[in-house]
Amino acid sequence: INTKLPAVGTNIFTIMSKLAADHESINLGQGFPDFNPDPTLISLVSKAMNDGYNQYPFMTGVPALRHTIAEKMFKTSGHQYDVDQEVTVTSGATEALMAAVISCAGPGDEVIVLEPCYDSYIPAITLSSATPICVPLTPPTSGSTTFSIDWDRVASSITPATKILILNFPHNPTSSVLTEADLDELERLSNQHDILFISDEVYEHIVFTKEGHKSLATRPALAARTFVISSFGKTTHTTGWKLGYCCAPPALTNELRKVHQFMVFTVPSPFQYAMAQYCKDPNTYLGLAAFYQEKRDHLINGLNQTRFKPLPSDGTFFLLADYSEISDLPEADFSIWLTKHHGVTVIPVSAFYSDPRSSTSNHNIIRFCFAKQPATLNAAIDRLITV
Amino acid sequence: INTKLPAVGTNIFTIMSKLAADHESINLGQGFPDFNPDPTLISLVSKAMNDGYNQYPFMTGVPALRHTIAEKMFKTSGHQYDVDQEVTVTSGATEALMAAVISCAGPGDEVIVLEPCYDSYIPAITLSSATPICVPLTPPTSGSTTFSIDWDRVASSITPATKILILNFPHNPTSSVLTEADLDELERLSNQHDILFISDEVYEHIVFTKEGHKSLATRPALAARTFVISSFGKTTHTTGWKLGYCCAPPALTNELRKVHQFMVFTVPSPFQYAMAQYCKDPNTYLGLAAFYQEKRDHLINGLNQTRFKPLPSDGTFFLLADYSEISDLPEADFSIWLTKHHGVTVIPVSAFYSDPRSSTSNHNIIRFCFAKQPATLNAAIDRLITV
Ligand SMILES: CSCCC(=O)C(=O)O
Ligand SMILES: CSCCC(=O)C(=O)O
Repeated sequence: INTKLPAVGTNIFTIMSKLAADHESINLGQGFPDFNPDPTLISLVSKAMNDGYNQYPFMTGVPALRHTIAEKMFKTSGHQYDVDQEVTVTSGATEALMAAVISCAGPGDEVIVLEPCYDSYIPAITLSSATPICVPLTPPTSGSTTFSIDWDRVASSITPATKILILNFPHNPTSSVLTEADLDELERLSNQHDILFISDEVYEHIVFTKEGHKSLATRPALAARTFVISSFGKTTHTTGWKLGYCCAPPALTNELRKVHQFMVFTVPSPFQYAMAQYCKDPNTYLGLAAFYQEKRDHLINGLNQTRFKPLPSDGTFFLLADYSEISDLPEADFSIWLTKHHGVTVIPVSAFYSDPRSSTSNHNIIRFCFAKQPATLNAAIDRLITV
Repeated sequence: INTKLPAVGTNIFTIMSKLAADHESINLGQGFPDFNPDPTLISLVSKAMNDGYNQYPFMTGVPALRHTIAEKMFKTSGHQYDVDQEVTVTSGATEALMAAVISCAGPGDEVIVLEPCYDSYIPAITLSSATPICVPLTPPTSGSTTFSIDWDRVASSITPATKILILNFPHNPTSSVLTEADLDELERLSNQHDILFISDEVYEHIVFTKEGHKSLATRPALAARTFVISSFGKTTHTTGWKLGYCCAPPALTNELRKVHQFMVFTVPSPFQYAMAQYCKDPNTYLGLAAFYQEKRDHLINGLNQTRFKPLPSDGTFFLLADYSEISDLPEADFSIWLTKHHGVTVIPVSAFYSDPRSSTSNHNIIRFCFAKQPATLNAAIDRLITV
């Protein structure tokens, strides 16, 4: 067999989590909470199973959950999605992304991603037989800035073959968020070019700026050509339940569902019934930013006692830090060294580039996940102080 | 956007289930049990959540579940799969099938399916940019036979471009099973041609013949080139939990996992932990054939009081029946009529053909699902007697 994905090996999250386990290292690498979801949510899943919701739900998702999603989207973006024709429940954001790319891109098409980017985007494009075009974000220019979008560079990467631009804000791994000015740039692009957007907004409820999250759905002109993708995993501390969704206009949703139907058909019913009920109450997600801001500040205060220099984190449960004062090693080597010699595991940002070993992918920056209990953060800080 | 799947509309299972609901019809169409799984299994899921298994499990699946799967495969096929390198937990059999096809077939390749076939096979081939080649099963020649494989016809459909042959025995919708003679034919094919097999064996534990289920894994020469795909949904009455798996040699597993990793990344952890524990006890699946044989015989006895002529069912929880004595309508029209006028919902076998309206797809045969409580079967029989 000829491999379709020659470049793909074990992913960085799995590698670093395994290394952390092997070295009894504190794992601030892979992005997942080390605490449990609300017991009420767990009880709702148990109740759904006991109530008999154990067979195939609708292919598009349980209606009550699609309602809850549409209400949540309306509350946070002001855009009213149609529950039947525009909302689809998916097997996490990952499946939604793959289905969106495969449904809309094909041989001869170009799909633009902003690097560094999440590791599933480029394989999804490759499997659709389209060509990935990587546009780098501008790296931080001082200790008080983070990665930013160079809109001129994005605009000049668009060709007649460009089909889709994939966005992911709040951004993993850089913690950047979109501003109104960025949405203006996107509107300008969408007026000048016939392109679609895929907007991975899984950290939508974890934004620390006064302006808050700027979904592409907030602008009707963008919503009309965007697959907005998100997940309950980050929002309800259930990354292992794989419950995601996609909101998109009917024509896009229709194509996405054709792929979704044959990719997984549907998504586990007990989680759907439980989440429909749980997230009907906006308090389940509206307090999340404050909850995580406290953890972010906890980690920043800790890092300020070390030789790591934290960069600004405006969203997500990640924080970048510069280690130039400590070492000149490439990011991957530094991350392995840190696990082995100091028992703290992080993710090299270079792993989010298509060519992780190149010098343009290495800025002496690593990513910390702060979705951890205070005791975990304290223990990690104690170790980092000695580095 | 140019649709990649122009032929795909709402699938037959969704259409018929909706029609059943609208007409308060007894739904013997879509294949799912109308009873609950073992309460012990549900408790194990609740326990897993309360024990904190709510974050990303390994991409390949929870090790304990892969162990349980390997043991189950060994018990039923005699083939020992390696837990780490040959077993992958997937989002139902559907995802495993799509990932297997996409990982191994591409533009210029041909993939053979036997018609009638499950509705996801041809779209999976189309999305991989390969060409589906449909080889019809031989329709029943008398009331005491069912659909059978014409091996000469299969052999003569193989070309140098043939990459994969997809099999699905016990067979949905025809209830046929493989015999040792069929495995001989497959071995002959695999000696003569460099092709892979995908064997969808989701009804592996529901076989009514003395010889029992013949997995492709029982023959080392076949196991060496086969993705054996199955699911816990049919085995534990949990079709809505979407827990499936794929066993394949390391080289095939490696490619499958590359696609799986980016298609869904992983599968909900609470179900994995629960199923690992539950199915460690072989009694959870070894009694399933007897359980369903009683239901099959219940439905056959009922149909013998009607003008429907049941065909042999050697496996699955489906039964075909000929309605020639009642009507000459094409199968889809007959199925709609039966729901509307007699309140019993079935699936037209023609829907499992690439061209459902053609006369070669219509044999005046419909499919009943008997995964239902005795009261449901009795109520349906009472109505069918009046047809
Ligand atoms: C799918 S494992 C990776 C989790 C995650 O989103 C991250 O660490 O970036
Ligand atoms: C995925 S819905 C279809 C269920 C099933 O396997 C069938 O009815 O054939």
